[in-house]
Amino acid sequence: MNKIFQEDIRRFLREDAPGGDLTSAAVFTPEQRGGARFVSRQEMIVAGMEKVAAQVFLFLEPDCEVSGLSDGKRVMAGDVLLEVKGTVANLLLAERLALNLVQRLCGIATLTNRFVELVKGLPVKIVDTRKTTPGLRSLEKYAVRVGGGHNHRFSLTDGILVKDNHIAACGSIAEAVKKIKNFVPHTLRIEVETETLDQVEECLAAGVDIIMLDNMEPEMMTKAVKLINGRAIVEASGGITLKNVRAVAQCGVDIISLGCLTHSAPACDISMII
Amino acid sequence: MNKIFQEDIRRFLREDAPGGDLTSAAVFTPEQRGGARFVSRQEMIVAGMEKVAAQVFLFLEPDCEVSGLSDGKRVMAGDVLLEVKGTVANLLLAERLALNLVQRLCGIATLTNRFVELVKGLPVKIVDTRKTTPGLRSLEKYAVRVGGGHNHRFSLTDGILVKDNHIAACGSIAEAVKKIKNFVPHTLRIEVETETLDQVEECLAAGVDIIMLDNMEPEMMTKAVKLINGRAIVEASGGITLKNVRAVAQCGVDIISLGCLTHSAPACDISMII
Amino acid sequence: MNKIFQEDIRRFLREDAPGGDLTSAAVFTPEQRGGARFVSRQEMIVAGMEKVAAQVFLFLEPDCEVSGLSDGKRVMAGDVLLEVKGTVANLLLAERLALNLVQRLCGIATLTNRFVELVKGLPVKIVDTRKTTPGLRSLEKYAVRVGGGHNHRFSLTDGILVKDNHIAACGSIAEAVKKIKNFVPHTLRIEVETETLDQVEECLAAGVDIIMLDNMEPEMMTKAVKLINGRAIVEASGGITLKNVRAVAQCGVDIISLGCLTHSAPACDISMII
Amino acid sequence: MNKIFQEDIRRFLREDAPGGDLTSAAVFTPEQRGGARFVSRQEMIVAGMEKVAAQVFLFLEPDCEVSGLSDGKRVMAGDVLLEVKGTVANLLLAERLALNLVQRLCGIATLTNRFVELVKGLPVKIVDTRKTTPGLRSLEKYAVRVGGGHNHRFSLTDGILVKDNHIAACGSIAEAVKKIKNFVPHTLRIEVETETLDQVEECLAAGVDIIMLDNMEPEMMTKAVKLINGRAIVEASGGITLKNVRAVAQCGVDIISLGCLTHSAPACDISMII
Amino acid sequence: MNKIFQEDIRRFLREDAPGGDLTSAAVFTPEQRGGARFVSRQEMIVAGMEKVAAQVFLFLEPDCEVSGLSDGKRVMAGDVLLEVKGTVANLLLAERLALNLVQRLCGIATLTNRFVELVKGLPVKIVDTRKTTPGLRSLEKYAVRVGGGHNHRFSLTDGILVKDNHIAACGSIAEAVKKIKNFVPHTLRIEVETETLDQVEECLAAGVDIIMLDNMEPEMMTKAVKLINGRAIVEASGGITLKNVRAVAQCGVDIISLGCLTHSAPACDISMII
Amino acid sequence: MNKIFQEDIRRFLREDAPGGDLTSAAVFTPEQRGGARFVSRQEMIVAGMEKVAAQVFLFLEPDCEVSGLSDGKRVMAGDVLLEVKGTVANLLLAERLALNLVQRLCGIATLTNRFVELVKGLPVKIVDTRKTTPGLRSLEKYAVRVGGGHNHRFSLTDGILVKDNHIAACGSIAEAVKKIKNFVPHTLRIEVETETLDQVEECLAAGVDIIMLDNMEPEMMTKAVKLINGRAIVEASGGITLKNVRAVAQCGVDIISLGCLTHSAPACDISMII
Repeated sequence: MNKIFQEDIRRFLREDAPGGDLTSAAVFTPEQRGGARFVSRQEMIVAGMEKVAAQVFLFLEPDCEVSGLSDGKRVMAGDVLLEVKGTVANLLLAERLALNLVQRLCGIATLTNRFVELVKGLPVKIVDTRKTTPGLRSLEKYAVRVGGGHNHRFSLTDGILVKDNHIAACGSIAEAVKKIKNFVPHTLRIEVETETLDQVEECLAAGVDIIMLDNMEPEMMTKAVKLINGRAIVEASGGITLKNVRAVAQCGVDIISLGCLTHSAPACDISMII
Repeated sequence: MNKIFQEDIRRFLREDAPGGDLTSAAVFTPEQRGGARFVSRQEMIVAGMEKVAAQVFLFLEPDCEVSGLSDGKRVMAGDVLLEVKGTVANLLLAERLALNLVQRLCGIATLTNRFVELVKGLPVKIVDTRKTTPGLRSLEKYAVRVGGGHNHRFSLTDGILVKDNHIAACGSIAEAVKKIKNFVPHTLRIEVETETLDQVEECLAAGVDIIMLDNMEPEMMTKAVKLINGRAIVEASGGITLKNVRAVAQCGVDIISLGCLTHSAPACDISMII
Repeated sequence: MNKIFQEDIRRFLREDAPGGDLTSAAVFTPEQRGGARFVSRQEMIVAGMEKVAAQVFLFLEPDCEVSGLSDGKRVMAGDVLLEVKGTVANLLLAERLALNLVQRLCGIATLTNRFVELVKGLPVKIVDTRKTTPGLRSLEKYAVRVGGGHNHRFSLTDGILVKDNHIAACGSIAEAVKKIKNFVPHTLRIEVETETLDQVEECLAAGVDIIMLDNMEPEMMTKAVKLINGRAIVEASGGITLKNVRAVAQCGVDIISLGCLTHSAPACDISMII
Repeated sequence: MNKIFQEDIRRFLREDAPGGDLTSAAVFTPEQRGGARFVSRQEMIVAGMEKVAAQVFLFLEPDCEVSGLSDGKRVMAGDVLLEVKGTVANLLLAERLALNLVQRLCGIATLTNRFVELVKGLPVKIVDTRKTTPGLRSLEKYAVRVGGGHNHRFSLTDGILVKDNHIAACGSIAEAVKKIKNFVPHTLRIEVETETLDQVEECLAAGVDIIMLDNMEPEMMTKAVKLINGRAIVEASGGITLKNVRAVAQCGVDIISLGCLTHSAPACDISMII
Repeated sequence: MNKIFQEDIRRFLREDAPGGDLTSAAVFTPEQRGGARFVSRQEMIVAGMEKVAAQVFLFLEPDCEVSGLSDGKRVMAGDVLLEVKGTVANLLLAERLALNLVQRLCGIATLTNRFVELVKGLPVKIVDTRKTTPGLRSLEKYAVRVGGGHNHRFSLTDGILVKDNHIAACGSIAEAVKKIKNFVPHTLRIEVETETLDQVEECLAAGVDIIMLDNMEPEMMTKAVKLINGRAIVEASGGITLKNVRAVAQCGVDIISLGCLTHSAPACDISMII
Repeated sequence: MNKIFQEDIRRFLREDAPGGDLTSAAVFTPEQRGGARFVSRQEMIVAGMEKVAAQVFLFLEPDCEVSGLSDGKRVMAGDVLLEVKGTVANLLLAERLALNLVQRLCGIATLTNRFVELVKGLPVKIVDTRKTTPGLRSLEKYAVRVGGGHNHRFSLTDGILVKDNHIAACGSIAEAVKKIKNFVPHTLRIEVETETLDQVEECLAAGVDIIMLDNMEPEMMTKAVKLINGRAIVEASGGITLKNVRAVAQCGVDIISLGCLTHSAPACDISMII
């Protein structure tokens, strides 16, 4: 959340206090200063203390003192995640937004990390999807990386994913791929979604760069990986959970993409103590 | 997501396609039309089909035909939630944003409804908190209402919640309440957070409108409710889950507030079929 | 006008100088420095020198030296309100916007204070309305507080005011109040507009929190206050001026709301001298 | 308030209802329709019914039926200014913003017109200044024109006004004018502020296009006009009120500029009846 | 310039008419209607008539009638490019912005097309760079495609280009590529900038996907292409002009990237006739 | 590009890195610092180093050290234009935007200066038009001034240019001028476009301030200048190039306006070296 995204902080704060914080305005003088700590209430992977939470405090009070744990660190319940000294009114005004952001980011990093740990030792990457919170994609994709995962495309502009509708419109995978290759930047690989081994073969014949195996059973997936045999990057997608992720990884795929990393990670429990 | 919030749709679409949808641009002509359906993949409470998802399609294509299920309806896996006819390129461009929004909103409505069902028959309201996604508060609070819940304050400007820091700064609950009463709009009730019965008594003496029982054990909560005896609205908060919510409700509180409704509701599973 | 509202300063400056200040650009070098003073040309209550005017100068030149009188002080013609040292080109660029803002805010604070003085000694609060300048509501409501007044609701989201249309749609006050109580946050009091004593009685029966006496004659108002007898907060509204405000207050109402505080306060006369 | 300024309507509505209109949401169904009228409560010059108020209703409900009186018409108390049919919830949501805007605009047009009437028959124009409400300059300058007045420059970019600081920085009026003529667009006239007849002579010698007579007594003003004798446009400014405006006009000046038109016009009294 | 980018039209119009079009306001009634034509004054490739220019007219007047030539068509001096019927005031308000945009876009498409024609018959693509006009990248990249060219990456987020600084920071090309491969989305190819044949070899050893030959002489380029021998996509960049582009293409490269397409294309000459 | 325009920098950077700079993120640590230089690759007039390029670096890193050559200086290939020290990741993130801006601005200043040099010694000003890049008008008009040129009107709000459509709508030049004089601010001169000597005479009779000779041959232009004989400012426009500009100037016109200064100036060649 560098300077480019500071505008978002402003918008979010305005949402949370369109006419200011009335309770604090009634009680505190503008000079009253204090210190606050973010304390973890559970085991988690830390994400966003310095890059996000601290920026909210600094936005409101550029000369407040604030420091936080490094991204990617594993902490336990009771650990201090961030310390900040500033005006009490500002600390309380920043509190909820900063927490709302990092509780989500730590939640994503922590869930990502559980998947990463489960496939440890296997040559596979855990990646996210476009199933992110509208308005927070950059931050959420950052949290996935903090958790040890990798990013899939950031938007419809920077990745090519050919689905059944595209194929239907062109008549065949070969035709679709040809049309797309002739159109899109040479800097982008072309990925095609498949559901059958026949489609996988069509992809190989068409020179597809990445083959997505969508919602396939492990058995079929293993066959597909053998068929592809290194001629394309293989991505597994659909129906993958903490329970079956290792089995999927053992099919030999290169990439496992998971919407749940960003759309269903429960928030981590963090509280601020003044 | 009425016209006031249309600007958000624009921003979210720009996030998802800063330079357009390259795959579709390569494959479809601008004239190619088609129809799409949102289909439920699980039991859920519907939220946002007409008010949110449809608006994304209409934003891109004001004359597309779109209709969706009413908010609050309970559906099963396989039910059709929304139907839309328009340009294929627009359908695919709108798809992810519309789904990202309603999967979250249905998730919130569905989780809220589970809590509401669990306290059925008891004179208590399930309410949300300010622990919402930055940038999406209005929508998420709407989803809580769809699920049968109610809203707590929308922001720091429209509700008064006196916490320990405010009390400490004033010396006593009585003094804090006096200061605040003298300052804030007469249209707002004054709520004070308490952790002990002594604090509850102080609140009653100070004429507090709403007393929050924060993280109290059921036993103490029951005592507090008796002590208050209708002289203030009683809100229970902290550590409340699907497992203990009915027990908490049976303590006689008027309001149960739950951060998890908005910060940890898993997304509902919905897919778009063209 | 803290950091959250800095964006407004930018927009306002752009309105006043979309392509810069041509006169200054022709005459001054960027290095030329000077000092300026805001001088009062009339008796007034000061509002916004530090919080608003100074922020305009600081926005353009973060290291300029600026200090102003405290909000709420009463000054006479000739008094210095603010002093600033900086680049002459910036002083002149900021001048008009800073003056336009504080002349209005001082005007509001001064008019509010006249009303407050007129009801001195009576247990009544002078409050504003939503009749504020579009885009400046937070600032104007701040100026009302500076003048010794209090704020009514900030927006349609943070206060409940039931008018005749709402009542008509529900059939009766009792029915409207029931519907609304069941819907709105428990943190908000419910206010109903009344024009007759019968309506006041209906309100009391329905458990309304705040009863607005709209455009009532003093006699009827006195009767209404007696009828209510402390069972609800009483707000007088409509047709109240400097001439009759004390008479209204003497009817025993708790709150007097005045649109003129913000929509018709004449600007105070302040000039900048370099 | 054409399409370019529609963004302002959105911003203003968001200020007035960041989370929606809770009272209406509790009471009305989205389908409930009704009609509303703006009714004048005083004699006034109408401004902004079609161009501003109607646009607020149309913004929220593009297919509502709305029509208003023409700008510039004089009306009496009780006259209907605007009629609109639409969703009741939208009518009430638009009401306050639409009224806040047109009450101000009618106020400006009405006050401007009083000045214009007072100088009737004399070859002089009543013009505004940059002392407008931040964020509303275009609208307010429009209202001045509706009232029969004319506009001074819109911003620091589109008019040249040389004040004492500019002159001091250059050493003399002649030098300042030379520097500025050499710099600014040839499309702009050069105006210089004067307080003495000597300065007026200097201006004439320097070939100034417009000479402002700032805060001069009628006698001196008359002398100045004679001295100038048609060689420059003459603008009177400072300390001009409804009481002395005709006397000032009779001095023979071409232009009378008045900050009060925009900074101190009392709002006109208009109400909406459903 | 679909709905997502409509906000840009608003901003651009506000730049060109912050307080409206004064000349037209003085002369035309709002009802006066007329027709206008964009006429080409030179041979050119048409770009943006329907997608950009027409959108400016439609933004101001949603029900104006407007139709334009298809993108990519070659026209001669005197050809009609676009016809529009609407309010005269709107036609003139839209004129300059619409022309400023399409004169630039046609200029880019026309210059791109000259390069494309010059390499006709050779298996090479002409592509753009990030050297676009700030704020107009999407439109300019669209114009390149209209002219028969292709797009390089849209931003720093959607393409990987390893330059000497990155290599220096890592110690070697191999190390840099390893680090990057391990970090970036699998959907992106990795491109490395080279200036010597040694570097080309290092790239091949490191498994680089795209090798940029930066500012190489034709001879060296030919050697590089042979060395690479299909094992990577080859992009030529730097110092390429209309004069030498065919010679560069004949070296056997796959891609020729040209900053001049967007940063130095002269505007096409188009005028609007009412 | 002072603080008012900082918002543009943010928008432009977001365009160039919506999800950050992936290559740098993979390679550099946030602490790695370095120095960079902008080096000229051709003879040019410097424009925007301190006021524009430096601001991009400062936006991303307020405490970076940066200094650049003064605007208006003539430099040769190889000269250093700007030096900056900061975080390597920020230097590379700012590079392209800063270069895209100053390459354009230097291009405009350099082309303007060529025209200015060609008319040296003659009493004529070279001025720009509204044919600027949408979104960059202020900056481009600034570059024209840096190159020794002057500015025509900034927008439709701050200059009056009467064209044939306006005349046709009014019946005659005299009538159009009368209408406009009666409407527009007295601070603006009135300019009329003419194509024949008859029209020039009509303008003189109507008391027009500026007469534009549109696309006239030198002979006719000379006649027009004689006819006008100092009674109006004379502006030549249309079809003027580096080749014929001196001949046009020798006709005796006061102003030569040139769209090409801003719509077709080739970018100057500048590169950044770390």
